[in-house]
Amino acid sequence: MHRAFEVTILGTSSASPTKTRHPSGQFVRMEGEYILLDCGEATQFQLVRFGLRMHRIRHIFITHLHGDHFFGLPGLMTSMALFGRTEPLHIYGPAGLKEWLEQTFAISDSRISYPVEYVVTRTDCTQVLLQTNWCEVKSIPLKHRIPCTGFILKERGPERKISVSACEAFDVPVSWYDELKTGADYTTPDGVTIKNDKLTLPAKPNRSYAYISDTVYDPDLIPQIQGVNLLYHESTFLHELLDRAGETLHTTARQAGSIAREARVEKLIIGHFSARYSGTDELLAEAKAEFDSTETAEEGKLYLV
Amino acid sequence: MHRAFEVTILGTSSASPTKTRHPSGQFVRMEGEYILLDCGEATQFQLVRFGLRMHRIRHIFITHLHGDHFFGLPGLMTSMALFGRTEPLHIYGPAGLKEWLEQTFAISDSRISYPVEYVVTRTDCTQVLLQTNWCEVKSIPLKHRIPCTGFILKERGPERKISVSACEAFDVPVSWYDELKTGADYTTPDGVTIKNDKLTLPAKPNRSYAYISDTVYDPDLIPQIQGVNLLYHESTFLHELLDRAGETLHTTARQAGSIAREARVEKLIIGHFSARYSGTDELLAEAKAEFDSTETAEEGKLYLV
Repeated sequence: MHRAFEVTILGTSSASPTKTRHPSGQFVRMEGEYILLDCGEATQFQLVRFGLRMHRIRHIFITHLHGDHFFGLPGLMTSMALFGRTEPLHIYGPAGLKEWLEQTFAISDSRISYPVEYVVTRTDCTQVLLQTNWCEVKSIPLKHRIPCTGFILKERGPERKISVSACEAFDVPVSWYDELKTGADYTTPDGVTIKNDKLTLPAKPNRSYAYISDTVYDPDLIPQIQGVNLLYHESTFLHELLDRAGETLHTTARQAGSIAREARVEKLIIGHFSARYSGTDELLAEAKAEFDSTETAEEGKLYLV
Repeated sequence: MHRAFEVTILGTSSASPTKTRHPSGQFVRMEGEYILLDCGEATQFQLVRFGLRMHRIRHIFITHLHGDHFFGLPGLMTSMALFGRTEPLHIYGPAGLKEWLEQTFAISDSRISYPVEYVVTRTDCTQVLLQTNWCEVKSIPLKHRIPCTGFILKERGPERKISVSACEAFDVPVSWYDELKTGADYTTPDGVTIKNDKLTLPAKPNRSYAYISDTVYDPDLIPQIQGVNLLYHESTFLHELLDRAGETLHTTARQAGSIAREARVEKLIIGHFSARYSGTDELLAEAKAEFDSTETAEEGKLYLV
């Protein structure tokens, strides 16, 4: 059975609004775990628009506290309460976010009907922020104008596949299958140990997704995202605006492509486009010149990891 | 010359988001003055979507601090700064709004490039909040779960119309016309006073628009909005949910229609619809049964006052 690992892009713009693009937000499904990455203004409306159920989200990861990455949190969280949520929500983000949200709920007389647990992200080291049955999420520090982290989402411990014919040959009871899937050996009633790899087939390698927004061009990222299946990397500007990218600590499309190539990722998605670009063809062409397996982020589109 | 007095509806929903409706916001043009009434989440995107220039807005009036009426302010105000605004912005709303916005700009590292002037609205009396060449805006207290005011926007002092034939008969120099329009008499070089009403025609009566959101059914409003040309009145529920309206301090469509009829307004717009209604035909029919000249608020539609 192939487990779902899907990213739906909710926003593709950088800070300034445009007629067709919204600020940053991504809805990630990792089989039984639903995650939101960033929550720019109007993220809740994008979720509704694309038929993605907000009540499924259990974990929200915020890269940094520029408005286009978190101004949608109060609206989303109060809507969750209006819809009667009782399940805990976990929010991971920079220091100060918890206090601001609590002030916002106080001033707006919002009753949050569910427990909220906050984890403060750090920018001096990588942190493993979450481990569930389905996934592991870790942060990596990014170089931006204010404290900022990217996130790497990795499938966790997919089970080994039972070799039914081998198990039958060794008379392994079906009730042992669940334990075999975890990698355990089997001991016969006579006390003979049958090694796990005789009874099971290897799991598929864990797939991984790296979400890198916002950052200046930073080759230090390359070893940290080496070989991920899918990389989202901000590409705010064309390379002709390299100076502007340097000043604002953003990346050009060409640079994003070169990061993807050097990190030998499978596929690159570029996004976080400056409002000055009404079309994105040139940005895509520039990134593809460095790394062919590149796609443009499109709002509402689902990308398989 | 007929002066523009136009209302564009940006949002028609109550607090819960739906696929097609956004939270409250209205863009009002009174000839040379551009005003925003409420600023729910995504108001900036609605402005961009409908081609309404945010830099023209000089005054923003916030009815109350439920999120669906003001969570869009930080995004709108930071976008105005990104677009290089330098002109002052005036914000009128309940106590606490200024402090929350300032905290929000601090935590999000937002540099607001223009002066912001705040006026705290009161709910114990009516206040004249603004008088310009074009308009007067006053608040009226509403009965809602938290402090809340409606706003009445009125054309101000339209100029009298010059009777060119009369002015020529009395040899009035053209250079006097501007003063005559304000209502001044003319004095001839011989010291004879010609009364203004012999030289000019009366101005059209001042048009007015009342924005009433959110409130429980409140007949005390009737004398205050008597005879306005256009009334927007919230109609969150059908009358069959009268109890729910009472509990949440909202109004039913039938009640909104009856307020409009009793106040002898020219036209009623109903809006602020509960997410439970996917269509609004029943709400409209109910209001029209009380007051025929009723329209449903539609996002992006321009209503003439």
